[in-house]
Amino acid sequence: MKSTHHLSRIARQVALPVTALAVTLHIAATAAAAQDVQGVISAQAPLVIKAQGSFYIDGRIVHSDAVSGQPGGLPFLGTNEGDIAVGQMYVQYQIPANAGRHVPVVMIHGGDLSGKTYETTPDGREGWATYFLRKGRPVYVPDQVSRARSGFDVTTINEVRLGRRSPSELPLIFVLPNQVAWLIFRFGPTYGTPFRNEQFPVRAAGQLARQVVPDFNFALPTPNPTLANLSRLAIRLRGAILMGHSESGGFPEQTALMNPQGIKGLITIESGCPATLTQEQLATLARIPILIVFGDHLADVPGSPLDWPALFRSCATFVNSVNQAGGDATMMHLPAMGIYGNSHMLMQDRNNLQLADLILRWIDQHVERHR
Amino acid sequence: MKSTHHLSRIARQVALPVTALAVTLHIAATAAAAQDVQGVISAQAPLVIKAQGSFYIDGRIVHSDAVSGQPGGLPFLGTNEGDIAVGQMYVQYQIPANAGRHVPVVMIHGGDLSGKTYETTPDGREGWATYFLRKGRPVYVPDQVSRARSGFDVTTINEVRLGRRSPSELPLIFVLPNQVAWLIFRFGPTYGTPFRNEQFPVRAAGQLARQVVPDFNFALPTPNPTLANLSRLAIRLRGAILMGHSESGGFPEQTALMNPQGIKGLITIESGCPATLTQEQLATLARIPILIVFGDHLADVPGSPLDWPALFRSCATFVNSVNQAGGDATMMHLPAMGIYGNSHMLMQDRNNLQLADLILRWIDQHVERHR
Repeated sequence: MKSTHHLSRIARQVALPVTALAVTLHIAATAAAAQDVQGVISAQAPLVIKAQGSFYIDGRIVHSDAVSGQPGGLPFLGTNEGDIAVGQMYVQYQIPANAGRHVPVVMIHGGDLSGKTYETTPDGREGWATYFLRKGRPVYVPDQVSRARSGFDVTTINEVRLGRRSPSELPLIFVLPNQVAWLIFRFGPTYGTPFRNEQFPVRAAGQLARQVVPDFNFALPTPNPTLANLSRLAIRLRGAILMGHSESGGFPEQTALMNPQGIKGLITIESGCPATLTQEQLATLARIPILIVFGDHLADVPGSPLDWPALFRSCATFVNSVNQAGGDATMMHLPAMGIYGNSHMLMQDRNNLQLADLILRWIDQHVERHR
Repeated sequence: MKSTHHLSRIARQVALPVTALAVTLHIAATAAAAQDVQGVISAQAPLVIKAQGSFYIDGRIVHSDAVSGQPGGLPFLGTNEGDIAVGQMYVQYQIPANAGRHVPVVMIHGGDLSGKTYETTPDGREGWATYFLRKGRPVYVPDQVSRARSGFDVTTINEVRLGRRSPSELPLIFVLPNQVAWLIFRFGPTYGTPFRNEQFPVRAAGQLARQVVPDFNFALPTPNPTLANLSRLAIRLRGAILMGHSESGGFPEQTALMNPQGIKGLITIESGCPATLTQEQLATLARIPILIVFGDHLADVPGSPLDWPALFRSCATFVNSVNQAGGDATMMHLPAMGIYGNSHMLMQDRNNLQLADLILRWIDQHVERHR
């Protein structure tokens, strides 16, 4: 338990902002509890599930004149056109038997990834989806629109293959190569070299590479249909906490600004925050508890194409603005709380359950104490 | 009900092997039991899960020189090349507390679909993945390689967008439009008109449309990497029953022919069967219990681009060949067993749990009785 001592010592050395301080005061207890709890609720402890399943939110039926890229259509189709669904969002859910009146948590993955983000970690430990469930939370895990089990519209790609459109009309899609992920996700200062205190299980980075699903977000209409789908989900659940990460880190706030109905809490993990908000928008966000989470080493990757210090500052400013407007926004900057070495993929880091406990604690105190 | 009579006649004409007869004799009792059981194990009965999670099988790291379709790369990538994973297969699993020594069941989805196939039905009833779990079976649900949460290789699409390749080099991908799905899946004789005894919940067909995920199988190497991944999964599980459907209906047998290690049973739902097998191949398949399942109305959709009667005949012949080689192959042709109206998507049909009970019974008697 050398690391525990190390972290406790560092925690005492750090000067903390007030909001973080409120959270930090719980750290010692939480960290200790997390250790105990981790021992008890090993992967062997049975989960008792009241209900589980999946469904699609929204989407609409459109006509496609190129359901395949073969002229005249593939033989077993007998045609090359027909009606298809676009814009739908896959949501998988589990409701634990001990949910009581806990507010459901919607866990939205980031760029190039899928709902897999919140499942088993790359090195085989329990992910947040199952852990939150153990803690009595109904958990809803979507795949963003046009990603993974939500499908995507093939029409344009097929029309280009058929020569009906120009290649420049192909959707702009991308994946994160390992070399870039290493830097953006802050696994270490340079590709292949981890930070000495790196919490991401870098030896399993190859498993993270396998989680990558091509990202169509640049090819989607504005606003991204995922936002309206998240709003519908929150309304359908009659109350939900929206948690976003990275690319989707701002989705909870953007969804609340579109329609705050049903949104009980906003959690933004490792993303940028809105810079210019009207007084009306600030007033809307001030009515919903907000948590911002950042990991470590924000300024320690010189080659990172993402400017993490600037993103952090945008959120620090945002937290202040919301609180000045009478809101309840908390900045959980982990190293400022004595928790070091966390990467951008902190839900998969080695201390992921400790971090989950911090978030659960925030939910208890900021979202559910009002109920 | 012309077709029913027609198929019953065919069923009578097909010499049923002894094993199939054995199953058929249980039908009356099983069907009644299924009704009782459905009343007891409603969606409200808690599930007790020993372990759950997900992982990727296999895949390899390759260099891509077009991780995005933007010249020079997207700004937040800082490059347009790097190493990416291809060929990996996502697998989600749950192991029930009451698994005992039950053999895990791997449920492989069909064309244009994902693992969602086996989850909640389009009209919101419990799917096979959860139902098998209730019956004590460890359940593993993959997304086929290059589909859904397994991702796909974007390189060629991006290279075409960048003008480095010709549009004709785009991968041949497809989706099933609603009009074709209605016919191929045998929801009724013509689009929009269901059979009078149709078991698929056609009013929820729009939800099935939302399950569609573009299919890259024509763009994959031969043999399809999903087969090797299924083999590795069966070996890793130290024994598994492989269940395939439609496009993947033959995957269990193809995987067993590649390497029978770890494969304890083969279930082919609504697909064609191999026509020409060597004596050695037959001998391999004769060592593994095999179940073939077909629904109703095979000959009742004149506009179907798929020739279901021919596919059925290929499997009837296959069953006979395997049994003549000393194997244990069973044809479960539902209308021949007094179960009418089942569609191609029979795991989502209204009587899906009754059918699950038939399959579970077959597993008990043909796969697990030997253990």
